[in-house]
This record gives sequence, C-alpha cells and structure tokens, in this order.
Amino acid sequence: MDQNELKQLVGDEAVKHIKDGMIVGLGSGSTVKLMVDSLGKRVKNEQMNIVCASTSKRTAKQAQDLGIIVKPLDEIDQIDLTIDGADEISKDFDGIKGGGAALLWEKIVATNSKKDLWIVDESKMVDKLGKFPLPVEVIPFGSSHLFERFEKMGYKPTYRMNGDSMLRTDSDNYIIDLHLGEIDQPNELADQLSNMTGVVEHGLFLNIVNTVIVGTQHGIKTLSREDLG
Amino acid sequence: MDQNELKQLVGDEAVKHIKDGMIVGLGSGSTVKLMVDSLGKRVKNEQMNIVCASTSKRTAKQAQDLGIIVKPLDEIDQIDLTIDGADEISKDFDGIKGGGAALLWEKIVATNSKKDLWIVDESKMVDKLGKFPLPVEVIPFGSSHLFERFEKMGYKPTYRMNGDSMLRTDSDNYIIDLHLGEIDQPNELADQLSNMTGVVEHGLFLNIVNTVIVGTQHGIKTLSREDLG
Repeated sequence: MDQNELKQLVGDEAVKHIKDGMIVGLGSGSTVKLMVDSLGKRVKNEQMNIVCASTSKRTAKQAQDLGIIVKPLDEIDQIDLTIDGADEISKDFDGIKGGGAALLWEKIVATNSKKDLWIVDESKMVDKLGKFPLPVEVIPFGSSHLFERFEKMGYKPTYRMNGDSMLRTDSDNYIIDLHLGEIDQPNELADQLSNMTGVVEHGLFLNIVNTVIVGTQHGIKTLSREDLG
Repeated sequence: MDQNELKQLVGDEAVKHIKDGMIVGLGSGSTVKLMVDSLGKRVKNEQMNIVCASTSKRTAKQAQDLGIIVKPLDEIDQIDLTIDGADEISKDFDGIKGGGAALLWEKIVATNSKKDLWIVDESKMVDKLGKFPLPVEVIPFGSSHLFERFEKMGYKPTYRMNGDSMLRTDSDNYIIDLHLGEIDQPNELADQLSNMTGVVEHGLFLNIVNTVIVGTQHGIKTLSREDLG
C-alpha cells in the first residue's frame, strides 16, 4: 500500500469511533481530509445526527460542503471526540503538530475535547521528537527580534512562507519553524516557548492525545495512552 | 496638585532620561501621552536626533504628528530606553499593565529594550498587586471556553468591551480582565497563564522595569530596581 492508501485506511477506521449524537472536533491536514470524506458518507447514509467544530477554515468548508453540520467552537459545549493528524508522535504519546499551520486552533479544539484521537501512517511514529521542524505561532509585531533570539538559542529558525510572502495563520499570525533535530526535554522546551513574549502557541502537544490509529503495511494498529503503563 | 499635574510632572522628568542619538520605545496611556507631548517639544527645540518604536497605533500617530521619527519595531535594532506607564507597581517592582489594552505590544517592546522606565502617579504604587484587574489577551477563537475555565478557577473574569462589542487589541485579539483582589504569587500565576492554550499574553510585567518615576504631592521620586537590595 502507498501512503495515501494507508491514510484512507486510518481515516475510515477513525470514523468508526464517532457515534450518533456526538459533538466532534475535526482536525486539519491530508489524513483528516480523507477521514472527513469518509465521515460525510456515513452522515449521509446513516442520517447521523452529529455536530462538528473545526480546527481550520479549510476543514470547515470541506465538511459543510459534504452536508456535515459545523458550528463555531464558541457556540458548542464540550467536544466529545476530536480526530486530528500529527506530524510526529513519540513512544510516550507526545506529538508535534502544525505542519499545516493550523496548530493554534488545533490545540484550542484539542484542549476542549474529552477525548483526542490522532490518525497517522507509520512514518510519523518516532522514538524521539524533533526531526520534524517544530512550528511556533508568533505575533507578527516584533517577530524579527524573536527570530534572532531563536537563532542565538541555536534553534535554527526559519519563517514559514506562502510563496514569496510570510504565511499567515487563520489567526493572522506568522509561523517560525525550529529545526531542532532532537528534542530531549519536551516539557521544559514547551514551558520555555510558552513564556516567551510574542509566542502565541507552539506545536508541542504534550499529554493531550488518548488514542492513536496507525496505518502500517501489516494493517491498522490502535494504540492507547492507557497501554503505556 | 491634581492627578493630571502629577502626570505632567513625571512625563517632563522622564523625558530628561532621553539622550540625543537614542532609540526610544514609547509606551501607551494617559501619562505617556503627556510625556510624548513633552518629548515632541524637546525634539523640535533641541533638534534631537532620536528614533522611536511605539507600543500602540495611537501613540505612533501622536508622535508622528509631533514630528518624532517612528519606525516599525522590526526595522529597529535593540531599543535603548522604553518609557511607559503602569496600572500598578508593587514594592518589588513587579507591575500590572494593560488598562489601555496595549499590554502585548508594550511587553514586546519592553523585552526588546536595554532599559525600561515607568512613569506613574503615587496612586499606582501598591504593597501587593491585584486590586487592579489583571488583563489577559486571548485568541478570540474558543475564548468563551477559556473564560469558563477562568470562572472555575475563581479568577472572576470579565470581557473588556468597546461600547456594545468586544474590544479588539492592535493584534485583533480579545482582553479578559481577571478580578483577583490580591496576587500572592505573581510568578506562579504568570507561568500558569502563559501555559494556557488560547492565552497570547498577560498583564503581569515581572522583572522588567529598571526605574520608576513617581509623582507625589511632595514632588518627584525616582526609584531604581538596584535600590531594592
């Protein structure tokens, strides 16, 4: 199977976790896109009664076009289940997200969900986080000084671009990617970044996900945080 | 002297700290407004050669109208001195800022300055922070859930309004004011708030200011962090 078939497989599997009457958070990215297509079919065929919140304008549009009810997060009580992708997941269920630049809204939705489910192909499962560049969402005002500070800290920053101009997130901020190689102490790094003035959010998702569905060449594996022991 | 005369007095005194050739950060608020007027006169009369960065669109406009050169923060190297007001200053030089809703840009400018000077009338000097509501700048997306969390934490939140609608900051975010009464552990609170998803910045300015000029009925007092011992 190629990577796309694996993504389809985990997307279909994830949709089985959605039950009638649920409030569902929809993530962003290519794997989630296939999952939302699959959800659209289920909602139509089974006349399911679900309400969704979206982590990006793009996913919201896709879902609505498929006839799925999407409400603004601020008009929704607590979300039952959020299904999202991830760019890297370590053995202890820490993750890096934000490759699609939606990390801020993704984290806001995730932290308002009773359960979080991530869907990935096996290439995303790693021993240690950090090979994937860590996205940091920053306030444009003064961001060049923050960039310099990251450089001095040895974090090898690059601005995320959209063609020739700076990429703007759904909250109209910039993304700076940190090329760290290996992250030895994710909790300490998360704390350091959160406390830096001008940093809105970072792509470290620690102690958030409950269940991971992984697509492998030998089929689907469902992993639970509870199994970590 | 009434409060306005005190503000004028400290504003005039603060301007004496600005030297020819400096890069100066300009704060926001009513005391700073009088200081900037005073600075405008000096720049004109003495043909001073200074460049300023501003913490708000409002102050930038005022300064430019007075003939002061204002450049975007991102086109400036390190600032030599920032002069700003404060809503509360404790005995150990911790402060609350953000009454004018400019706390985010104020903190970004302050943390890019070699020296920070605050100008206040004596009503702002307190034993312990917290009587003044603590402003927290938050991402609008999902902010109602953050508001509920603050309520559950006993932080007595209120949204900052602008007439009938939510106030928007210069970075287009909301402000939630926390009515805490007394803040016993400002460092712990700052850390907690910075780590909450959806919080962009908070109004606790800890370990930032170097010098405070206070206007009192008995004249002007200049206090230095170095004097704390």
